[in-house]
Amino acid sequence: MKVQAVDQVALQPVQMEGATGCQVRWLVSKTDGAPNFAMRLFEVAPGGYTPRHHHPYEHEIFVLEGEGEVYQGDKPHVLKAGTTVLVEADEVHQFRNTGNQALKFICLIPNSADNRPDGVKPECSSVAGQ
Amino acid sequence: MKVQAVDQVALQPVQMEGATGCQVRWLVSKTDGAPNFAMRLFEVAPGGYTPRHHHPYEHEIFVLEGEGEVYQGDKPHVLKAGTTVLVEADEVHQFRNTGNQALKFICLIPNSADNRPDGVKPECSSVAGQ
Repeated sequence: MKVQAVDQVALQPVQMEGATGCQVRWLVSKTDGAPNFAMRLFEVAPGGYTPRHHHPYEHEIFVLEGEGEVYQGDKPHVLKAGTTVLVEADEVHQFRNTGNQALKFICLIPNSADNRPDGVKPECSSVAGQ
Repeated sequence: MKVQAVDQVALQPVQMEGATGCQVRWLVSKTDGAPNFAMRLFEVAPGGYTPRHHHPYEHEIFVLEGEGEVYQGDKPHVLKAGTTVLVEADEVHQFRNTGNQALKFICLIPNSADNRPDGVKPECSSVAGQ
């Protein structure tokens, strides 16, 4: 068992092309012995956004704080505390902060996301690998 | 993509033996098309607790509100908003509300949890199947 507080986990900048004002904490991952999926906490600054992209694995998301939108292709959906999102594999998506405080959300991915033969990497893997 | 608010998802009693004062919302699961893992939100009333048990799959947990403890066998760990927990496969564990308001936490399990040949079911599956 591993028990920890959010602020014990490093907050790292998201340095992916297309990301602005994004930081991430890898809360639970393979490094901790999690066998199937990883839990990350994203913090997007006011005006910030994640890359508009797609990849061959899903996201499961729970919004903790703030206000924003998730784009399903060109269609926006409102995000606020308590919103849950399933982004399906290969869907074009982007998260945007539309409020005046940080947009914070939990985002889970399968471990298979960073082991794919096509070299597709999960958001922030370049940061996590530094 | 599926986007929904927590209160759009049914809050169901947890009727497992050994559970007291527990309710659950299945936020994202196979029914929604999630291919690998399921996200549930548990609400444990003051004085309530989940079963003390173990099973051959992991939990990944994020505490949203309230105060409580998670038992790792006989060893308690404090829970409050922002605590994350990895319960490893086969670990004996129990969640208890030690505060005076609801203890709310997100708990994820792999989809394989309810397809095991040994018949082990995830928490609340008996409710979800009703």
